[in-house]
Parts: sequence; C-alpha cells; structure tokens
Amino acid sequence: MEEIKQYIDKHRDRFLEELFELLRFPSVSADPKYKDSVLKTADYVAQKLKDAGADKVEVCPTAGYPIVYGEKIIDPAKPTVLVYGHYDVQPPDPLELWISPPFEPTVRDGKIYARGACDDKGQFYMHVKAFELMMQTGTLACNVKFMIEGEEEVGSNNLGIFVKENKERLKADIVLISDTSMISMENPSLETGLRGLSYLEVEVVGPNRDLHSGVYGGAVANPATILAKLIASLHDENNHITIPGFYDDVVELTAEERKALNSAPYDEEEYKKDLDVEELWGEKGYSTFERTGTRPTLEVNGIWGGYIGEGAKTVLPSKANAKISMRLVPNQTSEKITQLFTEHFERIAPKYVKVKVTPHHGGEPVVTPTDSVAFQAAKKAITTSFGKEPIPTRGGGSIPIVALFEAELGIKTVLMGFGLDSDALHSPNEKYDIFNFYKGIETLPLFHKYFAELSK
Amino acid sequence: MEEIKQYIDKHRDRFLEELFELLRFPSVSADPKYKDSVLKTADYVAQKLKDAGADKVEVCPTAGYPIVYGEKIIDPAKPTVLVYGHYDVQPPDPLELWISPPFEPTVRDGKIYARGACDDKGQFYMHVKAFELMMQTGTLACNVKFMIEGEEEVGSNNLGIFVKENKERLKADIVLISDTSMISMENPSLETGLRGLSYLEVEVVGPNRDLHSGVYGGAVANPATILAKLIASLHDENNHITIPGFYDDVVELTAEERKALNSAPYDEEEYKKDLDVEELWGEKGYSTFERTGTRPTLEVNGIWGGYIGEGAKTVLPSKANAKISMRLVPNQTSEKITQLFTEHFERIAPKYVKVKVTPHHGGEPVVTPTDSVAFQAAKKAITTSFGKEPIPTRGGGSIPIVALFEAELGIKTVLMGFGLDSDALHSPNEKYDIFNFYKGIETLPLFHKYFAELSK
Repeated sequence: MEEIKQYIDKHRDRFLEELFELLRFPSVSADPKYKDSVLKTADYVAQKLKDAGADKVEVCPTAGYPIVYGEKIIDPAKPTVLVYGHYDVQPPDPLELWISPPFEPTVRDGKIYARGACDDKGQFYMHVKAFELMMQTGTLACNVKFMIEGEEEVGSNNLGIFVKENKERLKADIVLISDTSMISMENPSLETGLRGLSYLEVEVVGPNRDLHSGVYGGAVANPATILAKLIASLHDENNHITIPGFYDDVVELTAEERKALNSAPYDEEEYKKDLDVEELWGEKGYSTFERTGTRPTLEVNGIWGGYIGEGAKTVLPSKANAKISMRLVPNQTSEKITQLFTEHFERIAPKYVKVKVTPHHGGEPVVTPTDSVAFQAAKKAITTSFGKEPIPTRGGGSIPIVALFEAELGIKTVLMGFGLDSDALHSPNEKYDIFNFYKGIETLPLFHKYFAELSK
Repeated sequence: MEEIKQYIDKHRDRFLEELFELLRFPSVSADPKYKDSVLKTADYVAQKLKDAGADKVEVCPTAGYPIVYGEKIIDPAKPTVLVYGHYDVQPPDPLELWISPPFEPTVRDGKIYARGACDDKGQFYMHVKAFELMMQTGTLACNVKFMIEGEEEVGSNNLGIFVKENKERLKADIVLISDTSMISMENPSLETGLRGLSYLEVEVVGPNRDLHSGVYGGAVANPATILAKLIASLHDENNHITIPGFYDDVVELTAEERKALNSAPYDEEEYKKDLDVEELWGEKGYSTFERTGTRPTLEVNGIWGGYIGEGAKTVLPSKANAKISMRLVPNQTSEKITQLFTEHFERIAPKYVKVKVTPHHGGEPVVTPTDSVAFQAAKKAITTSFGKEPIPTRGGGSIPIVALFEAELGIKTVLMGFGLDSDALHSPNEKYDIFNFYKGIETLPLFHKYFAELSK
C-alpha cells in the first residue's frame, strides 16, 4: 500500500492533467457531428497506453468507431485481467443547464465537472494509471489486456463483432470494469449484479397531416392523447407493469438476499432532498434499493408530438412519439421483453390510429457469483484499501456487454466502480470526485495482486 | 352581376399577382425572427388599400404589430360595413413536409399553395378587390371601413386596446369577416356560430434534474408518465371530458337545429379517406358536425419531455410539458373554463410531482342571429351568386375577436368565408382555390348591395 501511495503522490498532478486532456475531447458517439473528436480521442487513449508501458497497442478499426487495444504479458502462467472501458460519452444537452462547459473540465469542491468525468473516462483512466504504477514499481502481478471501445453509449454494436473476431487475442481469466458506483467512500460497496435493457421507440399516427384543431377537434382521435392513454396504461395503481408475461421470468431475491441488500445505509429524507421531490414513487411492496436494483422497470425517456415551439399553435398533430426503455433483471431476456412489449403495444392500440414499434439496442441482466476468485479478490482489495468490507449491491444501470463477454469469451466480469450516485451520469453537470479517482488508482493494483494470489 | 364579372375578368391576372406578392411576405407573428417581414406586410396592405381608393389609410402602431386602417365614407346616412382581417400567418413548420416553399406561392391544379393562402391573406384580400371593384364601377352601396391586424395568430392582444381607443373611428353597423369555410362551391354555406378557445400550457416537474434511468428508474415518478396519466384521464371511455363542471353552461341544440345542421352533405368514407384514418373518434351520441361545431372539445396541441433527439438516451426526464386547448360553445366562457381546467389539473396531480398551469390567450364562443338584416343580406348574396341558398353551419374554429367587437363596439359579425376544409389551415401545404378567390370577389359586392337595401 505504501509504495502505491507514494507513487500516486509523486505523479498526482500529471495524472489529473492527463485525465483533463482526455475529458476535453467531445467524444459524443451518438451525434455524427462529433466524429473527428471521437477518432482523436481513440488516438489519445492509444498513446497513453503506450506511455504507460503497454505492448501491441493498436487502434483497431470497426464499421463504426475504433476499439483501442493494448497488453502486457509478463508470464503466460499467470492469470490475465482484461480491462474494458469506453472513451465515448453521452451527449451533453441540455447545454444551458451546465454551470461550466461540458468539455472544459472544471474543479469545484474537489470534484471534476465534465461530460464523461465519471462515465467512463475518469473511471477507465484509473486502470491506465494503475497499470503504469504497477509497471513502474515492478509489481505487475497478472497479465493485463486493455479493450477500450468508442460506442458504448450507442449500443456497442461493433464490439460484438470485434470480440467474435479476436477471441484468441482477448483470451483472459476475468474482465474488469469500472463503470458503476459505490454507496460512498465511507461505505464502499461492490456490485453483484446489473439490470438489463430493452429500448424501443413508439410512433402513434392518426390523420395523415397536422390538422386545424378547431376544424377537426372532436372528430378524430388525437395521436398525442392516444399515446398518453397507452403510456398511462403501462403501470397499474401499484406501479406494477401491466404487459402480460412481463414478470414471468423474474427471479425474486431470497429473504436473506433482501436483508443484505437493505442493510446498506439509506436515508430516505436525504434521497428525496437531493432530488427535490416530496414523495418517492415505485412498485408497491419493495424498498428503494429493491426497486432500482432487483425489480424490472419501464420508463419514458422522451416524448414528443405536435407543436412544441414558442407560443400557441392550435394544431391537432398527425403523430406523437415516445422513447421507452425497460430495465430487466435475471432471468428476463432483452429479446423476449422487447417482443412482449411490441406485441402488447400493438394489441392495445385502438383502431383510430396506427402504431409502429421500433426496437433499439438491448442488453441482458447479469449477476456476479460472489464466491468466485475474482469477486473475492475485489472484496479483499477494497477491504484493504478502505479498511472496511464492501457492501454487496445490485446496480440499476445496464452494461450489456457483460453478457456478451460471457457468451463469446466465456469470461465473467467484476464490476469495481468508484463512482457515486451524485455523479449525475447522463445529466448536466456530470462530475467525478478527485478523491475517488485517486482511491481507485490506489485500490486497483490490489485487485491484481490478490487475483494472482487467490488464483494459485 | 354581369358588371361585376366583367370587371373581375378584366383584372383577374393583376388581382392574383397582387395576392402572390402579399403571400411572399413571411409574416409569421409567433416568431420574433420574422419581425421585419411582418412590418413590411402591413405597409403593403396599406398601399393596396390606397390603390383601391380608400381614404385615411394608416398603419396604426400598437405595442405589438400595427393595425392597418382605411375607409370610404360615401354617405353618413348609409350603413357602414367594417371589414376585419389579419395579415399575419401561422408558422410554416414542419418545413420538410411542404411540397413547394411556404412563402413562394405556387399554383397546382387550380389551387394556390402558400402559408396564408387561405388563412387569412387570400380571404381578406378578396374584400380589398371587391372594394376596388365597387369603387371603379361606382356601385359602392355602403360606407366601408377596413381594420386589418397583424397578431391574430398570437391572440390579438393589442386589438382590444386599439378597439377601445378608437370606438368613434370604428363605428359601424356590421363587422364582415372572411376567415372561415364553406362546405363546398357546389354546396355553399354560411357560418351561424364559432367555437371559443381556452389555451394553456402545463408543466409537470419531478426530480430537479434529468436522471440516469438505470440508477433511478423505479425509485421516483417519471414526469412524462405522470403527464401521460393526467392527459389520459381528461377523456372518459365515451370521449366525454372529465373536468368537473365543464359542460354546465353548454346550450344543447334543439332537435330542429340538429336536423338542419345534419342536413349538410356529409360523406363519412370521403372524410376518413381524406385524413387516411380507419375510424373516426369523438364524443358518443353526436355526429361529426355536432362534434366539431356544437360540442366543446379538448386537444393536446403539443407534448414534449426528455430526450427527443436521434438515437437512444436512457434518461428519466426532470420534466414534461404539454400545450392543451379547449374549444368552447355557448354559453361557456373562456375565463371560467380556463379556471376549471387549472383547478382540476392541479387537484389531480399526484404529490410525487409539481405541476404548473400557464394560460395563453382565449376567446369566447359566438352565435350569429339568423334573422338579422346582415345575415339575411349575406344569405341573399350567396343565393344570387351561387344560384343556391347557403346551408347554415357551425364552425369548429375560433375567432375570439368576434366577441370582442360585440362587447366593445356593440356590433355583430357576419362570417362570409370562402375557404374549404381541405385548405389545410395551420398545416403544411396550406392552399386556397383560385375559383374560390374570384367567387368571393364576385359575391362580396352583393352583400354590400343587399345590406344597404335591407337596412332601409
């Protein structure tokens, strides 16, 4: 530990400056106008891997944005850790809500504010610095491989192909990912599962053109109203989702598991105060942690139709649309849920309108076996670094590629994230605590050490 | 009639060219970026009134866009007709759905396609040409006054002030407006009433920022879902509006009135085919004409919230908004209905969210007495010009200033519109039939003639 801390202390400013440089690239994969920046970001990541001591560093082309690869093989007999991360970021809008510009990393109160500060640049870059640290102090305990992609925020469509075509190159014993959060630095935690994802767009079409709402209002169905009715019907009064068959494959937690999950510190007043809501809302019969970690949910991510500009326009819109996504838990599958939703939505749509359902990317739910060597190594690393055992948690978000890695490479994943719920991922004013950044660099080498020891 | 037709024939090309010139000004009052164009349009209208022979032509300033005034007093003993119209137009969006540019008038199949072709430039300009015709043929039968404003599409906020401050100048016996439609040129009709309007914006706010839908989905109410539930609740299964007290002041038509209204030609298959809908939708127990003309309605004009750009973004939106308007019938009042809606919406909003209701401009419903001299004059003019008596209809749209004129000037209004339902008002590819344009110029002088005769 001492040697690790000393190295970090000596290079802390440079580590931060390199991260700031990385954050300055507006690597927004969802919007083609940022294409050049995304590509430049890949080059920067490759350079940093080289500087840290990686071999065979390559910016691997795909049909979309490139995947950056690098490795250090010290001994084929030792276990191999495959580090995954992503250098692309969410779109920054709505821009007007950012206090400082999204691509000009700014420090306030010990936090780095920038799009991607936590998701995922701040987090994956800890691994690059941890790797440099282990190389420079001669303490590299496992072989290491890096696979940093540029399309996670848009569904990682080309990662699957890359993985399939590089099974030999990517051979490893565990995948290590930092893209999740801890309860807090005082209460470190470790993810034991992630929710899956099913994402769709729905379109409700009424008349073949926008109509004058005086001339036609009352005579024809208004697609915005019909869409509202369809969406409204998806949750009953207990906030249980009404799609037939939706819960069929859900595995309920055991009483013991629920107890462990609910033992994590939770202050409901603080939670509500942070969000500025008077009351919480969720599935009846479940606690907040269960609702976000162990239960499937359905959210409207976007809705639009008719005139949404300034002022008044008395139009009866021709159509209305919504983006809807569902978070899944084991053993639901993205394909089946997408199909159930589509069939249900088409069935409940009245004959006054036509509906169209278009699926986007999905992802499977995941549970990490807590008795595995890798999980035990992560647990020990955190216990040593934080002086406290991590609380087992279930993450609400989805990392679809975790299921992909298991299916294609036969490798499990350990999620060692150092973010916080307050990091405002996907929101304006995303941030990452500087303390957490360095704490991660401090903790990750211990994972490598214990993984090597426990694998013997 | 012969003299009228000859004059029109002689000058038909010029009439059309002047209208095209008027249509080329993008006089969009709702959007400040068109300000200069709106002002130039007022100047053009003033010039055309002068050219037609009006006196005391003035572009009268207001706190907003100016009102163009002009008059011809031939004999104080004769009745005075006050012509109202508006030179501003609806916004043209969505632009990509226009076949030819909205502000480049294009003729296809005998129809002029342009924003404002019917609403209201094509229609009010018929009065300017009818006036010129009467001046040139020495057949001006009544005194004429013109009041053409530039803010009808945004609520005519400054018209009321202008009217109040110019009661002497605007003294007249009838207001004449062309801003409505006929059933068809084969089945001419005359509006006997208009619906009123109440327009509001609602905002539903949940958490104080956009949230990651994985981290928080299931824990808090989604404003888009809550808005959908609130909107969905506004119509019951018979499409009857559920706001308490909403129908209290509605005057039902007598059996006779319903019979007359429903005697108008109506081909439901054609109606559905024109809109490309499989089924119509409306208040149970009423015909299509009754639903759009004699019953109050509620429409969502716009709805938006969350991420509505390209691709997927897994956000749980902080808020969701909608623009909602209601069409009113006698004796509902805009103020009372706006209040009922606001109170109801605030009351049904659950405590998981905060709602805000912001009223926009409103307007009162109107019924024209069919035994009046003015109505009889209009009826006779149409009968002479079309060779057929006009069918009495109830208009679905609102012209709020009609109630204003009665309240402030003590004058009733006759609505002699020559538009068609297919004109696509407020929609892309708005048009006005050239035949209708000339037919109006032909018919309007007859109104003046009979109004003078019947007023003796």
